[in-house]
Amino acid sequence: MKTLQIGMLGCGNVGVEVARLLTSDSGDFKARAGAELELVKIAVKDMEKARPGIAKKLLTSDSDSIVNDADIEIIIEVMGGIEPARKLLLTAMKNGKSVITANKALLAKHGAELYDAASANGVDLYYEASVGGAIPILRPLRDSIVGDHVTRIMGIVNGTTNYILTKMDENGSAFADVLKEAQALGYAEADPTADIEGHDAAAKAAILAGLAFHSRVSVDDVFCEGISGITATDISVAKAIDHVIKLLAIAELTSDNKISVRVHPTLIPRAHPLASVRNAFNAVFVEAESAGELMFYGRGAGGEPTASAILGDLIAVARHKSGGSLGAGESAYADLEIAAISSVKTRYLIRLNVADRPGVLATVAQIFASHNVSIQTVRQSGRGEDAELIVMTHGASDASLSATVKELAGHDVVKSVESVIRVEGATS
Amino acid sequence: MKTLQIGMLGCGNVGVEVARLLTSDSGDFKARAGAELELVKIAVKDMEKARPGIAKKLLTSDSDSIVNDADIEIIIEVMGGIEPARKLLLTAMKNGKSVITANKALLAKHGAELYDAASANGVDLYYEASVGGAIPILRPLRDSIVGDHVTRIMGIVNGTTNYILTKMDENGSAFADVLKEAQALGYAEADPTADIEGHDAAAKAAILAGLAFHSRVSVDDVFCEGISGITATDISVAKAIDHVIKLLAIAELTSDNKISVRVHPTLIPRAHPLASVRNAFNAVFVEAESAGELMFYGRGAGGEPTASAILGDLIAVARHKSGGSLGAGESAYADLEIAAISSVKTRYLIRLNVADRPGVLATVAQIFASHNVSIQTVRQSGRGEDAELIVMTHGASDASLSATVKELAGHDVVKSVESVIRVEGATS
Repeated sequence: MKTLQIGMLGCGNVGVEVARLLTSDSGDFKARAGAELELVKIAVKDMEKARPGIAKKLLTSDSDSIVNDADIEIIIEVMGGIEPARKLLLTAMKNGKSVITANKALLAKHGAELYDAASANGVDLYYEASVGGAIPILRPLRDSIVGDHVTRIMGIVNGTTNYILTKMDENGSAFADVLKEAQALGYAEADPTADIEGHDAAAKAAILAGLAFHSRVSVDDVFCEGISGITATDISVAKAIDHVIKLLAIAELTSDNKISVRVHPTLIPRAHPLASVRNAFNAVFVEAESAGELMFYGRGAGGEPTASAILGDLIAVARHKSGGSLGAGESAYADLEIAAISSVKTRYLIRLNVADRPGVLATVAQIFASHNVSIQTVRQSGRGEDAELIVMTHGASDASLSATVKELAGHDVVKSVESVIRVEGATS
Repeated sequence: MKTLQIGMLGCGNVGVEVARLLTSDSGDFKARAGAELELVKIAVKDMEKARPGIAKKLLTSDSDSIVNDADIEIIIEVMGGIEPARKLLLTAMKNGKSVITANKALLAKHGAELYDAASANGVDLYYEASVGGAIPILRPLRDSIVGDHVTRIMGIVNGTTNYILTKMDENGSAFADVLKEAQALGYAEADPTADIEGHDAAAKAAILAGLAFHSRVSVDDVFCEGISGITATDISVAKAIDHVIKLLAIAELTSDNKISVRVHPTLIPRAHPLASVRNAFNAVFVEAESAGELMFYGRGAGGEPTASAILGDLIAVARHKSGGSLGAGESAYADLEIAAISSVKTRYLIRLNVADRPGVLATVAQIFASHNVSIQTVRQSGRGEDAELIVMTHGASDASLSATVKELAGHDVVKSVESVIRVEGATS
């Protein structure tokens, strides 16, 4: 039986777990991969850091020595960040090594370059761990749902924001308070920007969109709005109309066959399968022409779940190596355009603080109509001199809706536009 | 670009949809498979039946002519049943053809023979459509979760029974009434035995167990109990304790490293992800050591969803053909034993009708204790001369529980044992 030497770049939470699993295997991986898997080198920044269970002799601070080692056939990259990860992986592929990476930021930014390198050098590039942690979603899109036509993907792909929104929903707390609590519990980082402003989800949206629609999609194509503006009132209004607010990564085919790819807080019906995805769990909901609705659910982050996805990729790549074959490479033949956000149609929930006097509703309704935004439902509740007006629209383009909101905000019957949140998901 | 000729055995609901998708493709499948996919022959029993959209010239009543056609490289089997499907697929593989099948009964009964034939002849045997319809679950188990150690699978894999149990839960109706309604709506067959007695789910349980635990599991290994004994009272008792009753296909590793594989009505907490799988939807819940909890959800039956899974397999097999490779074959290296149902431990909910007089509870509790069955909770509610006693046990073996129930049934304080239902699923 062949022995495959493996080099790893990085050894944080995930890397430690990958190393532990690989070195403690009692024969399962060998039997499943059809080859002996030997972790021979790990590149780390800090050689002195305590890494329980990992033999010191595996460690090196020289990552170049790994990607240029002629005996190493597979590289696992868990260092994160754009550089030097990008250059190291390009070198590794040029040297004929297959690559497994969990690096969503790198793939979402430089995917095209990496895919081209994999193809040019006849190596595998696998990255299941980059979206949804342990959840098998990327390979099902690449290899299983590939006999169908995906029309839409909606994913809860960021555990931090889902934890925060779940707690706000359960306890009625304010965003800032839950964020602090999440930071104390380790669910949110000290600098939570990448999570709460949606950048992490945007990278994942780009990866999902590219796979689903067989096109190249970069993180720069993704419209992105985070959850820091969501208030306790927004959550309670959502509750009152039997909805829940989730930060969704959405990739869908528009009616003119373009890709709309975006991340934003989204109202979905409480009966929608995504609504019951709570705390730090992730889930990806897929709609396809023949399959109908599919959902993939699991732990989206953490050392062990991420290691599970990496080891799954590793077995697949090792099987190819031992069989002298390659997995399916990038598929970008469809080459669809990205739809401008201004043209993308969704439903909206708009909450207004208006003067409570006759004719106000007619005025507001007229403003919506003048921008061709059709109203589905209105709820008005008086509270002294003011009234709260909650308007749910039918599908309207971002451009029409923005123009509507601008006119509303400038009109004297509207005291304030309290919030504007997109709405998705009919329940089945 | 290579053209791959495809022959299909059977042309019912699923076959018609597969043929329609293959013949109406506008180039997507070709681009994704790296080969032209040409459906050249379809074997049918009745040549005269109307099959809209399917060219008559494709049809033949001679299925042997398809599996022996030297130009055909891939066989899709959607005829169902054991024979002649088994012989035809063995001949096809002997003739070097790769096989895609949706035939759960055949795989669960003769899987070993088919796997051996695929391996001996160097062909692919793919069968995603056999479990969970459109849901990608078998290939994720074969190819993705393969880097992890599955400890348990619990699946809602039969749409008919899930529809019936959902309606009983929603409306409080009796089993027989909902079954009639399901038959009228086409959700249950005229002879519903295979569904409601759990045989369909048992075949799927065997397939899931074999893949998850890298062992050979036959339908004959599966303990099977259907839902025809579930009453409206069982459902309302479940509701009262915040549980729901589902027919689950369960495959789990026992503490002594054997496989417990079984199908039975199961109480699960209403907050468990499987509890919200309603109507005819399917879902497979997977627990693995590193990944933790995963769930795969979607449409488990019907022409279009099943065709989606078959086309996905077809693209995968075609990619292998055009690349001169093979997918990972059967993995049965672990060769684990099947645990006898008598030794399998679960929790139980037992509902008793007892005399309402002093000392009864003590007597009943003593009977449980004498068989080493530990009680978790008891709820007693008087109703005149009788009392209803609802006992939830801790984990107990089937053997101990059966002995307990036998003694209870024979004791004069117990007027009747109303029901005994297994309980699974701590919520996370």
